[in-house]
Amino acid sequence: MARQLFELCGADPARLFSPYCWRTRMALAHKGLEHETLPWRFTEKDRIAFAGSDKVPVLVDGDRVVADSWAIAEYLEDTYPDAPSLFGGAGGRALCRFLGHWTDSVVQAGIVGFVVADIATHLGPEDHAYFIASREKRFGKPLAEVVAGREERVAEFRRALYPLRTTLKERPFLGGPAPTYADYTVFGAFQWARCVSNFTLLEPDDVVHAWRARMLDLFGGMAREVPAQEAA
Amino acid sequence: MARQLFELCGADPARLFSPYCWRTRMALAHKGLEHETLPWRFTEKDRIAFAGSDKVPVLVDGDRVVADSWAIAEYLEDTYPDAPSLFGGAGGRALCRFLGHWTDSVVQAGIVGFVVADIATHLGPEDHAYFIASREKRFGKPLAEVVAGREERVAEFRRALYPLRTTLKERPFLGGPAPTYADYTVFGAFQWARCVSNFTLLEPDDVVHAWRARMLDLFGGMAREVPAQEAA
Repeated sequence: MARQLFELCGADPARLFSPYCWRTRMALAHKGLEHETLPWRFTEKDRIAFAGSDKVPVLVDGDRVVADSWAIAEYLEDTYPDAPSLFGGAGGRALCRFLGHWTDSVVQAGIVGFVVADIATHLGPEDHAYFIASREKRFGKPLAEVVAGREERVAEFRRALYPLRTTLKERPFLGGPAPTYADYTVFGAFQWARCVSNFTLLEPDDVVHAWRARMLDLFGGMAREVPAQEAA
Repeated sequence: MARQLFELCGADPARLFSPYCWRTRMALAHKGLEHETLPWRFTEKDRIAFAGSDKVPVLVDGDRVVADSWAIAEYLEDTYPDAPSLFGGAGGRALCRFLGHWTDSVVQAGIVGFVVADIATHLGPEDHAYFIASREKRFGKPLAEVVAGREERVAEFRRALYPLRTTLKERPFLGGPAPTYADYTVFGAFQWARCVSNFTLLEPDDVVHAWRARMLDLFGGMAREVPAQEAA
C-alpha cells in the first residue's frame, strides 16, 4: 500500500499551500520516503474523519494513520530510525517544539496578517465561502482590513525574525551544517506565503532570504515546483 | 589548579547577577564540575584582559582560558563528554543558539526595560557611575525614563513568552523531561531580574512561573542561595 498524505490545496490541486503540510512534505523528503499526495480542501472534512482529525496533514503509512504535523514528525523519526535524523538527538527533538511554537506565534501570526486575503483568491467557490466566513469571524473584520497597511507593518515582522536571522548568520541552517525539522518548521511558513501571495516578506540582502533560497533548492528543488506567486 | 570563573557581582560580592554568567554557572553544575567564583565588577576590565575579553563570564580551567558563555558551553560539552550532556546531541546544540538569540532579543530585551534602574542600586560607587553613563548612552535617556510605565508594559512581555509557555505546558523543561542548556539560557534572564529587582515579571498561575521555581530548585537550590529581591 502506497504511503499517502492528505495535503491542503487550492482550486488548483497542485497549489499545496498549508504551512503544516509543508513541514511534513519536507520531513518525508528528508527521510527519503516517497509519498502520494491526496489533494484535500478545507470543506472536505468528511474525507479525513477516519483519522480523528478535521485538519491536514494526515499521513496514511501502510496500516498506520497519523494526524498532526508534529505527531507525524515524531512518528517518522521513530519508525524510520535508520533514515537521516529529523531532530539530531533528543535535545533537538525537544527544542523543535519551541521552534514550532515560535513559528506559529511570530512567523505565521505575522504572515497571516499580510496574505490572508490573497489566500482566498486561490480557492474554489465552496472553500472560498468557508474561508472568508471562518477567517472574518476569527479576525473580527473583513480580510481587506486585516491586511491593510501591510507595507508599513512588514518592518516590524522583519525585526521579529532577529533570532532566526542571527542564528543564520552563524551557520547555513537552523539545524547546523544541514537542515533539520526546525528548518522545515520555519520554512513551511514562508512557503505558505510564497504559494498564495506576491507580497514581499524579506529584503533581498537578508540572510533569511538566502536561507529560504537554500531551502527551496533542497530535494531537487521540490518546493520550487509548486505554483507560486514569485515575489514573496 | 582549581577551576575558576570570573562572575559579575554588585557591591556585595555574593550578588552574582549577570544572565550570561548564570548560563555558565548552571552549565558547570549540570556537568558536575565544581568551580571557584572570582567576583568581578564592570570596571575591572584589566583583570580579564588576559582572556582577550572585556566581558564575563571568563572560565579558567587548568591551563585553558575560555571567554563568552556560548564558547564556554561548547568547551564544557566537548571537554567533558562523559558528564551529562548540555545539549542532548548535535541538533540540540544547534538549536540552543536560536534559544540564545531569542532570549537576548525577547526575554532580556524585555526585562532590561523593567529592571535597569534597579541594577544601579546594587553597584558600588565606581561601577554605579560607569553603569549609569553607559546605559543612559545606550538608551538615550535617563534610566528612570527607561523603566517608566513598566506595570503597563509587562503584559506585552508576558505575551511574548508564548513559545516558552506553550512548550512548558507540554513538558517540564525546554530540554524535555530534564533541563538542558536551553533551559539555563532562558533561566539566566529571569535569575538576573530576581537578583536585582522585586518587580513582578510573571503571574503566579503562569507555567513559566512554575518552571522558574523548578529551575531554582536544581542543584540543591543553588540559584536560590544568592541575594535576591524575592518578588520577581
